[in-house]
Amino acid sequence: MQKIRVMIVGYGNVGRGVRLSLQKNTDLELVGIVSRSPERVAREVTDVPVLPVSEPDRFLAELRPDVAILCGGSKNDLPAQGPVLAKLVNTVDSFDNHSRIPEYFKMMNEAATQSGHVSVISTGWDPGIFSLERVLANAFIPGARAYGFYGLGEKGGLSMGHSDALRTIPGVKDARQFTHAIPAAIEAVRNGENPAFEPGDMHTRECFVVLEEGADPEAVSRTIREMPGYFAPYQTTIHFVSQEELDTRYKGFPHDGLAVAAGVTGNDHTARVEYRCVWGSNPEATANVLVAHARAVARLAREGRRGAFTILDIPASYFSTLSREEMLAHWM
Amino acid sequence: MQKIRVMIVGYGNVGRGVRLSLQKNTDLELVGIVSRSPERVAREVTDVPVLPVSEPDRFLAELRPDVAILCGGSKNDLPAQGPVLAKLVNTVDSFDNHSRIPEYFKMMNEAATQSGHVSVISTGWDPGIFSLERVLANAFIPGARAYGFYGLGEKGGLSMGHSDALRTIPGVKDARQFTHAIPAAIEAVRNGENPAFEPGDMHTRECFVVLEEGADPEAVSRTIREMPGYFAPYQTTIHFVSQEELDTRYKGFPHDGLAVAAGVTGNDHTARVEYRCVWGSNPEATANVLVAHARAVARLAREGRRGAFTILDIPASYFSTLSREEMLAHWM
Repeated sequence: MQKIRVMIVGYGNVGRGVRLSLQKNTDLELVGIVSRSPERVAREVTDVPVLPVSEPDRFLAELRPDVAILCGGSKNDLPAQGPVLAKLVNTVDSFDNHSRIPEYFKMMNEAATQSGHVSVISTGWDPGIFSLERVLANAFIPGARAYGFYGLGEKGGLSMGHSDALRTIPGVKDARQFTHAIPAAIEAVRNGENPAFEPGDMHTRECFVVLEEGADPEAVSRTIREMPGYFAPYQTTIHFVSQEELDTRYKGFPHDGLAVAAGVTGNDHTARVEYRCVWGSNPEATANVLVAHARAVARLAREGRRGAFTILDIPASYFSTLSREEMLAHWM
Repeated sequence: MQKIRVMIVGYGNVGRGVRLSLQKNTDLELVGIVSRSPERVAREVTDVPVLPVSEPDRFLAELRPDVAILCGGSKNDLPAQGPVLAKLVNTVDSFDNHSRIPEYFKMMNEAATQSGHVSVISTGWDPGIFSLERVLANAFIPGARAYGFYGLGEKGGLSMGHSDALRTIPGVKDARQFTHAIPAAIEAVRNGENPAFEPGDMHTRECFVVLEEGADPEAVSRTIREMPGYFAPYQTTIHFVSQEELDTRYKGFPHDGLAVAAGVTGNDHTARVEYRCVWGSNPEATANVLVAHARAVARLAREGRRGAFTILDIPASYFSTLSREEMLAHWM
């Protein structure tokens, strides 16, 4: 069977993860990478063509992709690139700005529908797998609300968004932020209380900050604690560390989460479902989910479907390499 | 919007659970029950018609069901009733004899395809939700095997099949069997060892047995421990108890499980996913999943689909009452 031709758009941590993931998903093949900085990427990647994203006629003709995996950021890259690319090629992305998903879906749906393409949006582990688990939990336990917790392990989970926010503060040279779930909040959900949480009730935030020379730690601390949305609503711990300590003890992109819902069945029997994931590398986890969705995109496109989709619109079998016979015999 | 008309076929613990579940899923309505013993059921249920399963022309005309939820057993009821009913009406069932699923799928697919109906087979929590989680885990972490563990809580999980097996032994008046997961086996999977287990490596079995008067406990114990498939491969504990103790301390149908898979992303980053469910009532949990699938069956039928399906073939959104707008805005 012919391999699904995959093009990576944007080569950061997620793009690198997609490249590695494609080596283990042998029904797909990487045909090339497009980037705003093709020279930089070409120094790192020499086995496939690296082309400028500004030359769509060229990369479409040279790479002939079945699916483009969009690995840019949700803040600036995807809202601009997504609808343009969805007019040219089938796409999948991990747009993760939850509050803007309806708007992004609409844009992508229009672009993909008009041009006859398939665009799967907002997949990864959250949004993505967790979205699926939330909807299933609510369908199987009517009335149950599903809650998401992050950073359940000892070290917590690295939040890229909050780390980036710290780095914008004057006097901060480098920083990383680890999120911790509050165990008592998890227990309240497990007990079926369906609690109404404020953001600060579910998580705490731990910051490891490298100061610029001469910066005032108290001023930096105050700025962090008062940052609206990011830190102000949370119990926040701040550690000032050396660059070396940050690079060795707090390196990598570990993350983990729990989606949990509880309620009752029948009249009064307790019911609880939980989905837990633990990732040594958050961007590689997102990449793996994106690659499985690229497989689904190719299949939806072969079926003549068009428009935007989410993980909620796609049967699980579409993500898998297993045949129907294998699934019925060994996976049911 | 018109409610989905649901008929229950077979009124045991799962059938009762479906009736209760339909009270909370108000887009569906119970239009009647068909049974091999309608008189018995009619003594318990007085608010909807109860008709004999042997009179299909009558129950189809009187009840006009959109979907039949088949609540019979997998050993004798479903293999006989399923293909007959799939020729008459859209169906959903919880056929759970894993090794015979390919054969049952084939029968149901032929019956449903020929008659233009939709038949969703083998759903509940395992097979069902766990099947879905196994396939997703393998798709998102290529190479990872997904393992199922049951009875993780202190009391373990009640196994109906093993309880029934105990009750067939001469000298046994009544009995209930609780399955326990072996924690070390779970840890081996969590560690990414992808171990090759024999059945006895994953679970132990605990039996609570009420003896007939004059029965020989040693002979009964020997028979239990030597029962092939059910108990011989397992570390088995046997407690002889009074009927009163069985009915009070070991009552109900609690069960719980864990589907877990571990592997790596990229070159060497650990990755682990787990799905955990804890049910106060196992048959009510199965019933809730069946009802959500009845909603999906009605939608597939409205789309003109036909043939047999499993949970792996159905998008998650089909199980839900949530609108696309609600899902995009609040559940992604």
